[in-house]
Amino acid sequence: RFDDGVNQTNHAAGNRVPCRFPFSRVSKQDLAFFENLLPGRTIVDPDVLMTHNVDWMKSVRGSSELLLRPQTTEEVSKILKYCCERRLAVNPQGGNTGLVGGSVPVYDEIILSTSLMNQILSFDQVSGIITCQAGCVLENLSNYLEERDFIMPLDLGAKGSCQIGGNVATNAGGLRLLRYGSLRGTVLGLEVVLASGKILNFLTALRKDNTGYDLKQLFIGSEGTLGIITAVSILCPRRPRAVNVAFLGCSSYKKLLETFQCCRGMLGEILSAFEFLDSACMKLLEKHLKLINPIAENSFYIVIETAGSNADHDKEKLHNFLEAVMASFLVTDGTVATEDAKIKALWSIRERVTEALTHDGYTYKYDISLPLEKIYQLVEDMREYLGDKAKNVVGYGHVGDGNLHLNITSHSKDQALQEAIEPYVYEWTARYRGSISAEHGLGLKKRNYIHFSKHPEAVALMKDIKHMLDPHRILNPYKTLPDQDI
Amino acid sequence: RFDDGVNQTNHAAGNRVPCRFPFSRVSKQDLAFFENLLPGRTIVDPDVLMTHNVDWMKSVRGSSELLLRPQTTEEVSKILKYCCERRLAVNPQGGNTGLVGGSVPVYDEIILSTSLMNQILSFDQVSGIITCQAGCVLENLSNYLEERDFIMPLDLGAKGSCQIGGNVATNAGGLRLLRYGSLRGTVLGLEVVLASGKILNFLTALRKDNTGYDLKQLFIGSEGTLGIITAVSILCPRRPRAVNVAFLGCSSYKKLLETFQCCRGMLGEILSAFEFLDSACMKLLEKHLKLINPIAENSFYIVIETAGSNADHDKEKLHNFLEAVMASFLVTDGTVATEDAKIKALWSIRERVTEALTHDGYTYKYDISLPLEKIYQLVEDMREYLGDKAKNVVGYGHVGDGNLHLNITSHSKDQALQEAIEPYVYEWTARYRGSISAEHGLGLKKRNYIHFSKHPEAVALMKDIKHMLDPHRILNPYKTLPDQDI
Repeated sequence: RFDDGVNQTNHAAGNRVPCRFPFSRVSKQDLAFFENLLPGRTIVDPDVLMTHNVDWMKSVRGSSELLLRPQTTEEVSKILKYCCERRLAVNPQGGNTGLVGGSVPVYDEIILSTSLMNQILSFDQVSGIITCQAGCVLENLSNYLEERDFIMPLDLGAKGSCQIGGNVATNAGGLRLLRYGSLRGTVLGLEVVLASGKILNFLTALRKDNTGYDLKQLFIGSEGTLGIITAVSILCPRRPRAVNVAFLGCSSYKKLLETFQCCRGMLGEILSAFEFLDSACMKLLEKHLKLINPIAENSFYIVIETAGSNADHDKEKLHNFLEAVMASFLVTDGTVATEDAKIKALWSIRERVTEALTHDGYTYKYDISLPLEKIYQLVEDMREYLGDKAKNVVGYGHVGDGNLHLNITSHSKDQALQEAIEPYVYEWTARYRGSISAEHGLGLKKRNYIHFSKHPEAVALMKDIKHMLDPHRILNPYKTLPDQDI
Repeated sequence: RFDDGVNQTNHAAGNRVPCRFPFSRVSKQDLAFFENLLPGRTIVDPDVLMTHNVDWMKSVRGSSELLLRPQTTEEVSKILKYCCERRLAVNPQGGNTGLVGGSVPVYDEIILSTSLMNQILSFDQVSGIITCQAGCVLENLSNYLEERDFIMPLDLGAKGSCQIGGNVATNAGGLRLLRYGSLRGTVLGLEVVLASGKILNFLTALRKDNTGYDLKQLFIGSEGTLGIITAVSILCPRRPRAVNVAFLGCSSYKKLLETFQCCRGMLGEILSAFEFLDSACMKLLEKHLKLINPIAENSFYIVIETAGSNADHDKEKLHNFLEAVMASFLVTDGTVATEDAKIKALWSIRERVTEALTHDGYTYKYDISLPLEKIYQLVEDMREYLGDKAKNVVGYGHVGDGNLHLNITSHSKDQALQEAIEPYVYEWTARYRGSISAEHGLGLKKRNYIHFSKHPEAVALMKDIKHMLDPHRILNPYKTLPDQDI
């Protein structure tokens, strides 16, 4: 049964079966230890385990027989200390919303879920700094902050399930990065438990601290392979007093880019998002989710959000911008929302593309960074290159961040199609010095393609750091680092 | 003569004399190697060396007899490979404007200056990403960008001399951090030469890249102890179309903080700086630099800068804010500038405090992060605690970032005064979980106080990383890490 799980996992990931590093199997004594440490929170029920063994996309599946649900940092520390001594592999898991198979076991790793570590520890109304446990759900944090006139500096489609610890561990990007920057700037402090069980407390709540190396950065984006994040402190922006959303149509990608340039100039500091989807995405939304296109049919659709402190000023800026882009025929149709309900409706067009894709068949997902002018050329080249091998080839994403989500659907899982796409898509990306994973991370699925974006010296240094911090390689094995470096 | 230099250095730094790690002395053969590699750029002239051996503050002095001025990354690589094999210690030096003795040799380390590595390699007008060599002077980059309608995301008083490589190596903060965030977010790529001579090329120009650990972060803020930064790519914001500066007076620190809160709400996204100085600073500016206080005498002075895309909107926001704070008696007097010359004049009041201090005698400088409400209490406590032991105790800094510059002057260097200040100032800071170096770094002078801001586990991990990347410890020895960990 384990082998079956393994094969399926690796088949789905399209990788060769990795060697199974010599870890121990969980014994009865181990189980007794965990039951004593976490009474009622040491789970062996196969039904419960099933949802934790399979990822959100249902594309990878592990065979873990043990789920641990600690509530405190000390419990995490005791678990890891024990696992390290016993050479038991551990798969840290947050909201399990990742898209690269990083959040589920590959074999029978113990799943360490942070779901019960969901306490807000402090919030400073003056500085806007929130400190909380890693298992807090992003949407809960957002709601908590909005009541206090602040917002989280990040927002994702998966906000209802994803956890802040997982967001930080994967350096999640999302919809607000254009405005508030990456988590590398907004995360001020972390608490991390190393593989040895040692607790590293970097949980400061200071905007500036240049006392030595900024070690917390090592753990941001390392996908649980260097340590388990147990608490986070984040700098949060004030809640904007006025939010407007415009949904616009463009006839070409060239015009879309010109619209973006014009937008940055005229909306300036109030621009908080510039997102796009192509007409193929819109067709899937109409077909599978019965969403109604609020404007005339077009080749490209843009979602522009403004967030500012003065409603009149923002409205005027937006109005001037819209007049300019309509007058110069950059934009052919559009609609604007200022009330909450309509804003949500317009945003949902962009946010529900992922969901529409899941209804279209098996989806091959690529998350690519490219120079802005190259972004859509990849979609067009791929469409032409694949011909009728694929059901649909669609593009959407964060134009403002140079981040394309390229998605290719087929009626069912199709090895030939995958082999046509890969490494073509990675070679294409490397040719323009792009990144083969802009925000999703490497996880299980993309780890062996790291060389398309990183030089061998960088991969070698990653390996050295992994060995330094987790010499027995118990933390999230088979993830992030390429096979030969596991 | 070396011993003399060493003693003076360490006396000035107030530290005990560190053990001199067994490095080699530069031999005739070594000199011949460097002269062959860098003809005309291998400097042994004592007069030239003097300016490179002494820091900007004239507070520390090394005894280096050799200055190397490479122009290319390959030259830096060859230098380090040779020095590593020969166990020759190297002091990387940018603009030599640091304030903690990190940029000058302690003993006779070879000085590797990046001054001739001053080429701009590329600038993308669409994305605003500039890529340049490490030795570019910040002000030159600013001028280059402003001609192209962009600005650098950082600005410092030392901009005329400091180099971008040094800015990144020290994770410089400065005057725009409040608006554009830290270099950890805006630096997109680095090229770094390790102690072994190996070149690490992370010089991507992508806003997002989650392919593995973000190794460049290790080098940001590590003060040249882990590698030498040779090139940088940075995301630059658009040049704001309208800039306004207000210079205001407050009668108490409490009112200053309330003004800040009001300001964040009413100026919102256009607020680009919120700086302060106390009346003691103003007195020094008047006395030593003959600057004229443009408003009525007060206990505290604030410099507020707005930067936005619409002059009318910004003016209206600023006007509304000023009306509100005058009406509620938070602010008692003020003046506003919209033209360049007056903006520069108002800014210079804040920027020239450092210069005024140098005229007041020997200056003990502390760069502290604290919770906002505690910032000025440290100045008051210190003033009371020192009594007439000190000539002046003054406070200024970046309120918006929670960063106080506490400066204490005396007629001349005064060991008794220093012993009164330290560790008092560090203990005070640690009590409120502040940082003993917000933006200046640790360098030579603060390295032994790291324990006031970092847990022993963090210091141990720093040491492990240092040993991994620079096993022979040739890079900027006696800096950043505390003595016992050198």
